Amino acid sequence: MTSLTIPESHADLLEAPLATLATVGPDGRPQLSSVWFLAEDGVVRISLNTNRQKTKNLQANPVIGVHIQDTANPVRYLEVRGDARIEPDDDYAFAMRVGAGLDLRAMDAGQGRRVVVTVEPTRVNAIDLSAG
Amino acid sequence: MTSLTIPESHADLLEAPLATLATVGPDGRPQLSSVWFLAEDGVVRISLNTNRQKTKNLQANPVIGVHIQDTANPVRYLEVRGDARIEPDDDYAFAMRVGAGLDLRAMDAGQGRRVVVTVEPTRVNAIDLSAG
Repeated sequence: MTSLTIPESHADLLEAPLATLATVGPDGRPQLSSVWFLAEDGVVRISLNTNRQKTKNLQANPVIGVHIQDTANPVRYLEVRGDARIEPDDDYAFAMRVGAGLDLRAMDAGQGRRVVVTVEPTRVNAIDLSAG
Repeated sequence: MTSLTIPESHADLLEAPLATLATVGPDGRPQLSSVWFLAEDGVVRISLNTNRQKTKNLQANPVIGVHIQDTANPVRYLEVRGDARIEPDDDYAFAMRVGAGLDLRAMDAGQGRRVVVTVEPTRVNAIDLSAG
């Protein structure tokens, strides 16, 4: 698996709680949502419920994009593009660690199944228009 | 043209300076970047340079998504999905009004052409997981 090589200049953004996730829907249009993520073992991982359209999109078409904004600097952000690997998280082991203290099990309320989505990166863009 | 119907609960997000733009690249993967935008005449408009890959993506495949995050509330955001209409902005008339005081003409430095991208919405999602 390719791991994520993030320039030092943008490494702090991997500590951000929130990213924008892009999947591509059945009509070919991008679908965007805010997601909690963890960057660990050199990859970005997201916790999703199989009942959500974004998960269905990834199951049908594993193309994925993640965008992490520096909320203090509009012109600084990180983009990771790649393919999604989807694995079960039935015991919520990953879900319990993501989401800034959210109880994702309670949010699911028994509906759908929890999965871990790992972004296998094909491209990383570390943008800072304010940099020299 | 369909115009944008935004719930009152999320109307303030249209005043935000920054959005995340999603296009779909030649490899079918979503491409994400931060863009300044204006919401006016019931639509979201973005200023782009034709030299950028995101503009080329839209010219080849007009599917587009825009995501506007409430930076003060992680679980509140607006998503607009649709098709891009691309029109010339050779005199920078639109570009001069967007970008929070940025000089987009200077940034272009004579490279490429400036265009206005209008999102013709097919779907709007106004999300607030913290709402009752």
